[in-house]
Amino acid sequence: MAPPAPAGPLGIAIVGLGTIARAQHVPAIRADPAWHLCGVVDPAASLPGVPAYTSLADLFAAQPDCAAVALCTPPGVRLDLAREALAAGRHVLLEKPPAPSVTLAEALHRTADAAERTLFATWHSRFAPLVAPARQWLAGRRIDQVAITWREDVRVWHPGQAWLFEPGGMGVFDPGINALSIVTAILPEPLAMTRADFSIPQGRSAPIAVDLVMRHGAAPVTAQFDFREQGGEQWDIVVTTDAGLLELRRGGAELVTPEGQQSAPEAEYPAIYARFRELIGRGESDVDLAPLQLVADAFLQARAVGVPDYPY
Amino acid sequence: MAPPAPAGPLGIAIVGLGTIARAQHVPAIRADPAWHLCGVVDPAASLPGVPAYTSLADLFAAQPDCAAVALCTPPGVRLDLAREALAAGRHVLLEKPPAPSVTLAEALHRTADAAERTLFATWHSRFAPLVAPARQWLAGRRIDQVAITWREDVRVWHPGQAWLFEPGGMGVFDPGINALSIVTAILPEPLAMTRADFSIPQGRSAPIAVDLVMRHGAAPVTAQFDFREQGGEQWDIVVTTDAGLLELRRGGAELVTPEGQQSAPEAEYPAIYARFRELIGRGESDVDLAPLQLVADAFLQARAVGVPDYPY
Repeated sequence: MAPPAPAGPLGIAIVGLGTIARAQHVPAIRADPAWHLCGVVDPAASLPGVPAYTSLADLFAAQPDCAAVALCTPPGVRLDLAREALAAGRHVLLEKPPAPSVTLAEALHRTADAAERTLFATWHSRFAPLVAPARQWLAGRRIDQVAITWREDVRVWHPGQAWLFEPGGMGVFDPGINALSIVTAILPEPLAMTRADFSIPQGRSAPIAVDLVMRHGAAPVTAQFDFREQGGEQWDIVVTTDAGLLELRRGGAELVTPEGQQSAPEAEYPAIYARFRELIGRGESDVDLAPLQLVADAFLQARAVGVPDYPY
Repeated sequence: MAPPAPAGPLGIAIVGLGTIARAQHVPAIRADPAWHLCGVVDPAASLPGVPAYTSLADLFAAQPDCAAVALCTPPGVRLDLAREALAAGRHVLLEKPPAPSVTLAEALHRTADAAERTLFATWHSRFAPLVAPARQWLAGRRIDQVAITWREDVRVWHPGQAWLFEPGGMGVFDPGINALSIVTAILPEPLAMTRADFSIPQGRSAPIAVDLVMRHGAAPVTAQFDFREQGGEQWDIVVTTDAGLLELRRGGAELVTPEGQQSAPEAEYPAIYARFRELIGRGESDVDLAPLQLVADAFLQARAVGVPDYPY
């Protein structure tokens, strides 16, 4: 893999200056002395005081020292951008999901290895503050049952993002894969997808709600994802064990066990950028495709029913 | 893994005495002195002179020495049968596809490893006589392009098998996965699924025809699978290389290269049973999920259109 990076701040550019980039990536990079925000690549948006480019080629030509890019675009264009950045010798951080298919993500991982550059396929929800404590609490317990409930209003969280319901857009799996990224991180064994029921709005291609049945060893794991929740978000994982219930609530911001309750402020992206810097320093990649694999396996087995459209 | 099996013929039972079992599995087992056909498990069918059972439990109770089972049932019930056989300490041969999802197949593989028994997820088309020569010819060549055409009449090849078009039935991928099992065996690098267009008959859940675009490195790989061919079967793979065209035709029974043409009689299942015996002797499993992974990735990205039903 890549030789260790030089000490001092590494130059990184944001590609795709949308909501998630402005709200999370830019502040995390600016707050971390290990990084220097050296550019923004976007066809239409820019940040005051940061060099702006409309293509990766322009960025790389202007800044040979820009060592890394964070790809925050919609999923459809991410893969080509990642290939271009790796071919230009840059390290790449990917927003989730890492690619439109498992095999494309695996191919990108091989490309990064061949280029001796770091590829970091992030799952931001795994960096929620109480995910690691939940994993530690579950280690060594007998898992009897898991119930995942992930409900939010697509109108509130994804206004105008029609691509979500186009082919490959994954629909409610866009938030649901966050839940899958957490459960695959906190449970001791891999999950297997056994049944998937999809509700697909009239005239759209991707599900607005799904019910999943998985297995963790012989224990049942159910998941209910729904984009039509108008009563506030619910992002909860409840694990029944031989030592009682573990409840990981609010997407990993609150943890309840028989020993008590903890909550913590959101701090996913600072941890992600610390991890990216660490991976580069060690010449390693981090590409865990388990959450995407479960989604692919759900589509493979899907029993679909039509439901009324939910305009937004 | 399992200790080496004793010398002499091993007892094996056929589970699910349908068309493929009668036409292929039974003759292959009977022709191989390494095997002894010790039973048939089927709710309704039997073979003269072979002990018949209606459940795995009855078989195992009656014949503690029956060391292996070959699961030739429709896919829907195969997984539970495989778990039951492994739990009873038997080696398991699976017809394709090995499981309803990639993660379920991975879980079954872990179960076999934990039980120290052999699991052989077969892809019968890989044992077509000219697949190995095709792989050898392609090794070291530059692959520029691959075109797969897999067309047959579902009415001829799958009469009455309505489960093919139910959820999880995979539709035209039932034969198409044979093509994918061959290309993943003969090409030097892994494939990645980039686009899938599905034609789904009115009132059914699985595609009757698909057009796929994959990548082998940077080379395009296209596949056209169609169940509505009324002019005879076409099972062809054409690979464009720096040394000319390789054409693997008739599902692997005919090979054309610039050096000439070869053809060979079908002999898939004898080779499969020789391989199964070899795996058991070495205490190993063989579970390659690449073909199923590509199908899952196709469903994940599918752009579906409705087409008229094709009654059969």
